[in-house]
Amino acid sequence: MHSPLSPAGSEADKWIAGPAGPIERKSVTGMPAVGMVGGGQLARMTSAAAVGLGATFLVLAESPNESAALVARNVVLGSHRSLPDLLAFAAECDVITFDHEHVPGAILTELEAAGILVRPGSASLRYTQDKLAMRDRLSALGVPCPRYAPVSSVAEVAEFAGGSWPVVLKAVSGGYDGKGVWVCHSAAEAGEVIAHGVALLAEEFVPFRRELAALVARSPCQQGAAYPVVQTVQVDGICREVIAPAPGLDPDTAIEAEALALRIAAELDVTGLLAVELFEARDGRLLVNELAMRPHNSGHWTIEGARTSQFEQHLRAVLDLPLGSCAPTAPPGQFTVMANLLGGTDPDVFDRYIHVMAADPAVKVHFYGKEVRPGRKIGHVTIVGAAGDKVEELRDRARRAASYLRWGTEDGD
Amino acid sequence: MHSPLSPAGSEADKWIAGPAGPIERKSVTGMPAVGMVGGGQLARMTSAAAVGLGATFLVLAESPNESAALVARNVVLGSHRSLPDLLAFAAECDVITFDHEHVPGAILTELEAAGILVRPGSASLRYTQDKLAMRDRLSALGVPCPRYAPVSSVAEVAEFAGGSWPVVLKAVSGGYDGKGVWVCHSAAEAGEVIAHGVALLAEEFVPFRRELAALVARSPCQQGAAYPVVQTVQVDGICREVIAPAPGLDPDTAIEAEALALRIAAELDVTGLLAVELFEARDGRLLVNELAMRPHNSGHWTIEGARTSQFEQHLRAVLDLPLGSCAPTAPPGQFTVMANLLGGTDPDVFDRYIHVMAADPAVKVHFYGKEVRPGRKIGHVTIVGAAGDKVEELRDRARRAASYLRWGTEDGD
Repeated sequence: MHSPLSPAGSEADKWIAGPAGPIERKSVTGMPAVGMVGGGQLARMTSAAAVGLGATFLVLAESPNESAALVARNVVLGSHRSLPDLLAFAAECDVITFDHEHVPGAILTELEAAGILVRPGSASLRYTQDKLAMRDRLSALGVPCPRYAPVSSVAEVAEFAGGSWPVVLKAVSGGYDGKGVWVCHSAAEAGEVIAHGVALLAEEFVPFRRELAALVARSPCQQGAAYPVVQTVQVDGICREVIAPAPGLDPDTAIEAEALALRIAAELDVTGLLAVELFEARDGRLLVNELAMRPHNSGHWTIEGARTSQFEQHLRAVLDLPLGSCAPTAPPGQFTVMANLLGGTDPDVFDRYIHVMAADPAVKVHFYGKEVRPGRKIGHVTIVGAAGDKVEELRDRARRAASYLRWGTEDGD
Repeated sequence: MHSPLSPAGSEADKWIAGPAGPIERKSVTGMPAVGMVGGGQLARMTSAAAVGLGATFLVLAESPNESAALVARNVVLGSHRSLPDLLAFAAECDVITFDHEHVPGAILTELEAAGILVRPGSASLRYTQDKLAMRDRLSALGVPCPRYAPVSSVAEVAEFAGGSWPVVLKAVSGGYDGKGVWVCHSAAEAGEVIAHGVALLAEEFVPFRRELAALVARSPCQQGAAYPVVQTVQVDGICREVIAPAPGLDPDTAIEAEALALRIAAELDVTGLLAVELFEARDGRLLVNELAMRPHNSGHWTIEGARTSQFEQHLRAVLDLPLGSCAPTAPPGQFTVMANLLGGTDPDVFDRYIHVMAADPAVKVHFYGKEVRPGRKIGHVTIVGAAGDKVEELRDRARRAASYLRWGTEDGD
C-alpha cells in the first residue's frame, strides 16, 4: 500500500517513544490535542480530519467567522503575530502547527524556547518565510533551482537579465497565490517593482512544459511518505486545477520528484507536510519553484483521492503517529481531478450548487464557508475517476462544475 | 455512477423548489443550517460531513462531553425529551434531524405543528419507535417479515410458540444494540421477560444464513439512492463487522433488497436515510428484521468505501439537495470491511492505536471521543480492498486491528 519511497514497517515499537519523546496528552479523551495557528480553509479541512483520528483539535483564529472557526469546536481568538496570544493558545495544546507561514520567526523561536512543541519548527519554517534563504540552502544541497540573485536596484535586475527578458522578481517574504511575484519584460517594468520598496529576488524565467507538485510527509521519528506527483495548472498565479497523478509523467521523473521532496524534507528537518512546487522544464529537467510546510492546495485531491488525506497525514506527522498510506483510491491508470472554485459576482451560490450536484452526482464540492468575492478561493471540487473515464473528460467535468458554481454557466472561466 | 435503482438525472430544475418548497437559509454563510438532535457518534460523523458540504451544523446534546459535542462548532445543550429545549434548538436551524429515535412522538408532532421542518417526520419515525406499528404496516404492504404477535402473558407467548421454541421477544419500544431483545427457549424464560412489565412483541426465531442490511436515502422531492447491500455480523446483538457488498450475494437478491428498501422508504414517506436490517433465511428468502431512519452502523463503511458517505447523504436528503453517488470506491469485485471497536479493560487506547497504525497503514481508525468502558462502542476501523486483496484477508486485518485496540493482542474477540 506504500509508495516505494516510504518504508513504513510493522515495527511498531519505534513509534512508542521516538527520538522526540512521547507526546503529552491533555485532552479529556486521553488523545493528544493539536493546535493549528490560522483559521483558513486548510485549518477547516484539518479539523474534519481530526474528527476521525480522535485527536482534539484547536484553532487560533482572528475572528469567529473565519473558515475554520465556523466548524471547529475549540476556537481561540487571537493574533498569530502576538506572542502572548500564541503562548495562551499553546498552553491548551500538546503540539502546535500552522495553516500558513506568517508567524514571525522571532516569535517561533520564543515559543520553542518556552518548551512548546512547534511542528514544523522555526528552523524549518524559515525556508518558507525567506525565499532567499530557501534558494541559498537548496543550492548548497545541490537541488536544481532557477538561477537567482538578490536585487535591490534596476541596474542589478538588468545585470541579472543580461539582455535576456523576461525576468521574474519575487518578494523575499510574504507572497502567496501569485501576490509578490512579478514577471518583468523590461528594465522599466522592473523599476515599477523596485519602487514598491520590498526586499526582492530575481529569478530566471523558466520556459516550462508544465508545473508539478510533490507532496510528502515526514514525522519526528523520521518516517517519510510520498503522495503521487501531481500536475498543477495556474492562472494568474492562482492554482486552478490539479491532476493526480500527473498524466504521462515519465516514471523515473516521478520517482526523482518524490525522492527530491523526501530529501528536502529530511535536510530541512521538516515535521508534517512538505509541498514542493516544481517546474518541468521543456528539456525535461525538474526545477524547484516554491516550498510549503503545511497542507497545500495541490493536495486537496487527497480527501477523496488517496487512502489518507493530506490533512490527516499532517496531523499524524505532527503527533508523531505512524503515517498513513498515500496510495490513490482511483483504480490503477485512473486519475483524480481537483478544480478550485473562485467567487463570481453573484454572492448567492446555493441554487447553482444544487444544479451542480444534480448534474453530476460524482462531483464532490467542498465549500470553505467564505463570503463570495470575485476571484476569491471559496471552495474546490473533486472527481475521482472510475474505470473507463478519460482524464480530459474528468477535467472537463471538474471545470464545468467550478464554472457553473462561479458564473451560472458551464462555459465560463 | 448510480445504482440502477437511483435514477438521479440532470434535470436540475426540479430540485430548486421541490414539492416541499425551498429551504430557508439562516446561516451567516448563506448555506442552510441543519440541526441534529442527539450528540452521539452518528452526529459526530455527520458534523465532519457537513464541513465539506458547507452546511452549518448544530447539535442538541445533553452534555458538552458527548461524542459530537466534542467536535461540532455549534452545540446547544438540552434534552431531546423537552419541548422547550427542542423549540429553542430548532429556532437556530432550517431543518432538524436525528442521531437516534428517542424523541417522543407527541413532541415530534408538536414541533411539526409549530411549523418546524422535521426530517424524517413524526409519521415516518413512528415506525422506528413502535415495533408493533412497524410490523403491522410492513405486513399490510406485503413486505416479508418474521411471523409476529403482540403478547402480554406467558400463556400468549406459549400459544404463539405452539410448541416450537425458541421464540424471540422484543420490547415494542426503546430497544437498541441487542437491548430489548430476548431469545427465549422455554415458557419459563419467557416468564422472566414478561416480568419486566414492558410492552412486548413475540416473533418467530428465523434460522438465517446470515444478516444483511440495505441502506437507501430518499429526499423530499422523492429522489432515491441505494447503497450496495452489505452483510452484517452481530455478536450478542451488537454489530461487530460489516462487509460491503455482501460477498457472494445473488445479484437478483441484491436488487430485490435495494428495491424493497426504496419501496419501504417511499411507502413510509422517509426523508433521509433508511436502513433495513434483513435476515437472509436458509431458504434464500429475505425477511425484514429492523428499520432505522438515520445514519446506521451498517453504513459506516461508506466514509471511505463509497463516493458519498451515508452522513453526507443524510444531510443532502434532509436539505432536499440532489443525492450523491452511492457507488463503491473499491475496484470492481473488491470489498470494504468495517469492524466495530469495543472498549476493553484498559482505558488508555493511545499506545495500542500507534501500534495499529504502524502495523497496517491502510487501516482507517475512527474514534468517537468516548471514554473507554468494557464492551462500549468507542470507534470503528475500515479497510477498503485494493486489487488482489481477498475478502477473508481484509476481514482478518480489520478484526486484528479492532482486537489489538481493545485487548492489546491481535487474537482477542
